[in-house]
Amino acid sequence: MFDYPVMKSVDLNRVFASITSHWDPHIVGELNGQEVKCAKIKGEFVWHQHDAADELFLVHRGTLHLRMRDGVVTLGPGEFYIVPRGVEHQPFAPEEVELVLFEPAATLNTGNVRNEFTKDNPKRIT
Amino acid sequence: MFDYPVMKSVDLNRVFASITSHWDPHIVGELNGQEVKCAKIKGEFVWHQHDAADELFLVHRGTLHLRMRDGVVTLGPGEFYIVPRGVEHQPFAPEEVELVLFEPAATLNTGNVRNEFTKDNPKRIT
Repeated sequence: MFDYPVMKSVDLNRVFASITSHWDPHIVGELNGQEVKCAKIKGEFVWHQHDAADELFLVHRGTLHLRMRDGVVTLGPGEFYIVPRGVEHQPFAPEEVELVLFEPAATLNTGNVRNEFTKDNPKRIT
Repeated sequence: MFDYPVMKSVDLNRVFASITSHWDPHIVGELNGQEVKCAKIKGEFVWHQHDAADELFLVHRGTLHLRMRDGVVTLGPGEFYIVPRGVEHQPFAPEEVELVLFEPAATLNTGNVRNEFTKDNPKRIT
């Protein structure tokens, strides 16, 4: 009856309190081949795209700008946007943002780009 | 380059302000074969399970109890729990709860049960 171990509940406030680095996604949940990740971000990320992954950005705290080639989306707390696969985007946060991500397992944070932001093995918080 | 139309951002507060019924999930986003749904709930739901779907419950407002056969999980705002596929569960909310769900597209709200709570065609808010 249990295909998976029963998972503990996750308190996003507690998760974010434990994250001390920027642009360093932490895996906090897994379901149906997807992952839930939390990251604190500040500043300007690299332009990139995910060729096979739609990516949901949900702001927990702060104000996030998602630049795309045809415009910008600005998200405050409780707002989300889904960047479709194949769409170039650049997260930008003038002040620190607490961000929840939903995306397929093993999605690389920098997509088609490799640089100093690339995190091949995200930490897990369980 | 665009496999999907670019989707508008979603403001969860605005979504919940527009929902006037209980136990009536509204689809607010789609990605990677998964759906994001919002529901207002109050009272006791039916015991059920999803044989092929892990289901994430994220509380936006209020306090949700998820009864399972081996215990209960209680979630407040900003807390989530993933009910693994095959695990019987019963959501219970003494007071109204604003709930965000992540689950595979076409997951039936009552899982393996059909009764007066069953919603075959969830509304969409876009």
